[in-house]
Amino acid sequence: MAKAVTARESIRKWDRSQIISLLETIAEKLDGAASELIPLAMNETNLTEVRLTGEVGRMSGQWRHMAAVLKKGDYLGTVIDSADSTLQPPRPELRKTTVPLGVVGIFGASNFPFAFGVGGCDTASAIAAGCPVIIKAHPGHLETSRKVFQIMAAAARSFNAPDGLFNMVEAFEAGIEFVKHKDVSAVAFTGSTLGGRALFDIAQSRKDPIPFYGELGGLNPIFVTEEAANRNGSVVAQGFLDSVNLGAGQFCTKPGYLILVNGSKMREEIVNLVPTVVTHAMLNEKIREAHARNRSTYAGLPFVKLLAQGVATSDAIEPITIFEISGADLLANQEVTLKEVFGPTAVVVNCASNEEALKVANSFHGTLASGIHGEVNDRIISMGLLDILVRISGRIIWNSWPTGVAVTWAMHHGGPYPASTNSLFTSVGADSIKRFRRPVVFQNMPTELLPTELK
Amino acid sequence: MAKAVTARESIRKWDRSQIISLLETIAEKLDGAASELIPLAMNETNLTEVRLTGEVGRMSGQWRHMAAVLKKGDYLGTVIDSADSTLQPPRPELRKTTVPLGVVGIFGASNFPFAFGVGGCDTASAIAAGCPVIIKAHPGHLETSRKVFQIMAAAARSFNAPDGLFNMVEAFEAGIEFVKHKDVSAVAFTGSTLGGRALFDIAQSRKDPIPFYGELGGLNPIFVTEEAANRNGSVVAQGFLDSVNLGAGQFCTKPGYLILVNGSKMREEIVNLVPTVVTHAMLNEKIREAHARNRSTYAGLPFVKLLAQGVATSDAIEPITIFEISGADLLANQEVTLKEVFGPTAVVVNCASNEEALKVANSFHGTLASGIHGEVNDRIISMGLLDILVRISGRIIWNSWPTGVAVTWAMHHGGPYPASTNSLFTSVGADSIKRFRRPVVFQNMPTELLPTELK
Repeated sequence: MAKAVTARESIRKWDRSQIISLLETIAEKLDGAASELIPLAMNETNLTEVRLTGEVGRMSGQWRHMAAVLKKGDYLGTVIDSADSTLQPPRPELRKTTVPLGVVGIFGASNFPFAFGVGGCDTASAIAAGCPVIIKAHPGHLETSRKVFQIMAAAARSFNAPDGLFNMVEAFEAGIEFVKHKDVSAVAFTGSTLGGRALFDIAQSRKDPIPFYGELGGLNPIFVTEEAANRNGSVVAQGFLDSVNLGAGQFCTKPGYLILVNGSKMREEIVNLVPTVVTHAMLNEKIREAHARNRSTYAGLPFVKLLAQGVATSDAIEPITIFEISGADLLANQEVTLKEVFGPTAVVVNCASNEEALKVANSFHGTLASGIHGEVNDRIISMGLLDILVRISGRIIWNSWPTGVAVTWAMHHGGPYPASTNSLFTSVGADSIKRFRRPVVFQNMPTELLPTELK
Repeated sequence: MAKAVTARESIRKWDRSQIISLLETIAEKLDGAASELIPLAMNETNLTEVRLTGEVGRMSGQWRHMAAVLKKGDYLGTVIDSADSTLQPPRPELRKTTVPLGVVGIFGASNFPFAFGVGGCDTASAIAAGCPVIIKAHPGHLETSRKVFQIMAAAARSFNAPDGLFNMVEAFEAGIEFVKHKDVSAVAFTGSTLGGRALFDIAQSRKDPIPFYGELGGLNPIFVTEEAANRNGSVVAQGFLDSVNLGAGQFCTKPGYLILVNGSKMREEIVNLVPTVVTHAMLNEKIREAHARNRSTYAGLPFVKLLAQGVATSDAIEPITIFEISGADLLANQEVTLKEVFGPTAVVVNCASNEEALKVANSFHGTLASGIHGEVNDRIISMGLLDILVRISGRIIWNSWPTGVAVTWAMHHGGPYPASTNSLFTSVGADSIKRFRRPVVFQNMPTELLPTELK
């Protein structure tokens, strides 16, 4: 922490162009180490070479995107009011910009060792914001995390960056300690609602509470209009299963609920397609066991039926599982039926009417994503389905699927609680940097003393 | 609350131009009622007609400024990424905007019955954001609050706004209840650290925590360089006393600490000027008593000396009081010496060197404002004083005083805890609206279904 505090003060004096060079160099070094990184992650997880290759590219791409954000410059939020002595009361000169928040604590995720790990978007955006980081490596891929950390730290050294700019801890207790530490100014977390909430509570109960940006997941309900189910039910059914099954269902944007209205035909399509789904191994045995346990709990609910289940071709694999429940039963038992099962499991909700489907939509808490399959003139659209989805979601998807979160300017990856602990911010995309900068306004300040962007 | 929830849904369907008209009408009606409002506030507080006249203008000005913010439109935060199938992975079309957060709970302040009361900036910015409000009136000026509320509610009715757009409660318990209520989506508060923290804790310990924007005040330290004290110590001394004394010291931006380096000459100027200060009555007897009590406590600290004290010309008046303490004693006893005394009391800190003054600067926690009196080439500037003030402050003022917070585009009124419970947001100025809007991104959404600004 002492080194991080020293780094916090010296990194403030860096030119923006120096940070851009550092970000771009880290991107290059991470790409250059792909052939070392991928085998490490394959050894520590059951993820495939193809998936991990894509993920290294996404990781380095995030560093490059942050460099582009710094070049564009509007993340600074500069606003200038000139002095005006004719106003009543007279207005002083005010020049506003943002400054780095301070040392940022980061918890790497289990499910994406690269994209949301030690070198993921939280780290890239905090460093881009000018904040030293202290990262808790996820125990599911320690060797991979250490290597990514070494690459970032070596790149920083090659730029004579301050020693404490990158810091990593591994012990469970060390993560809790830095959330409590007086010199940590913000925390970013990607993971479970339970773990995220526990850390959020610690951060908020400090003597000086700090922003806690927890990305906790979502149920990501997808609605199929009655008309769409009749028009192209088999295409939608196939897309649904592919999205549930992607990465063995270990995406925070997995479509956990598919809501049908009089969808018995489409329900049959799903039953027919499930046996054709090629399942993947889950990340590791611990996560596989948790999935099996949560699936059993869900299967044990009296009003839940098994709609279709795939076949596990190895011990590491959990079969894709699709449950079904009636809209009425879901509405009458929301506390137990609206639950994320992390893994290749999802729930089809059979509604008897559009009115019931709207009630189901209203029953969801905050979610990262939601979606509609349909056409503009379909009946449930005119009844206000989209308004409800806007109220509960951070991202709303039309005729496609929530898995896949583009690293780009307009992305918003967050949503009302429990999707995020702070729904005003995104953990992916250009605006993720805004989590780690704070406005400061200079009143009547001489030009020589202003930050470069305000001169 | 039921009416507020109904209003929440119907106000979403309003055109931006309708909200602009409502804001401008409320501004006009508040101005038109000045001759009724001012006597009410004079009856409930000791504030003068001149001060209250200015404050009504500031209140209505905030509503007009929010109308200007809506006309400018960049508060929406719209960003559009066009689809790009040549990227790997292909990028969907993403259109981002912000949407109203939901029902906002507001606690009016005691010290500004109009500017930060029931019709203050929190209410104006929440309504501008499209959020219904439920306001807790301050018990210090209930009749004034009721009248302001009636004017706003009547203006809303004249626009056929939904019935639950404006709501007001008066009971202490009702305020706590709405912070806990599941249908309240954010809370704004202006007041004491103790009260604000208690409500913050309730908001964060909810099953679904909500943003709590507390503006809790500050010690607002002002540094006078050794050179400036010698150059124009009497001008600075006069400015300091005027700023401490403004509104009987009942401003959250009162300069609570004046830090001098070898400033014995300037210290004498303060002693000479204090008897000439014309003191004002405090808001009410309860606040006067609290000031007298807190001033006594401060006076009782063994290392604190009374530097100068004015004369009270009536029972409602607390005399202006300037304490002094050495930099060394302050540093050795930060827990007790760094304390806000709400009212016309401030502390001169006598430092023996620039090094000691920098240590004193570093000892301050988050503050709304801070300042420097000096010139660019003065020694303590080159030693890094400004960097420290940037770390602890939301606004930094050069050769002027923190009292007076312009309602304008670049204003930032907030700061690291305990200045605010969320240092990323301002409670005054254009960006105050951002507290009450949340990003949502639409992926591949048909144009017909997009919000107007994204079409």
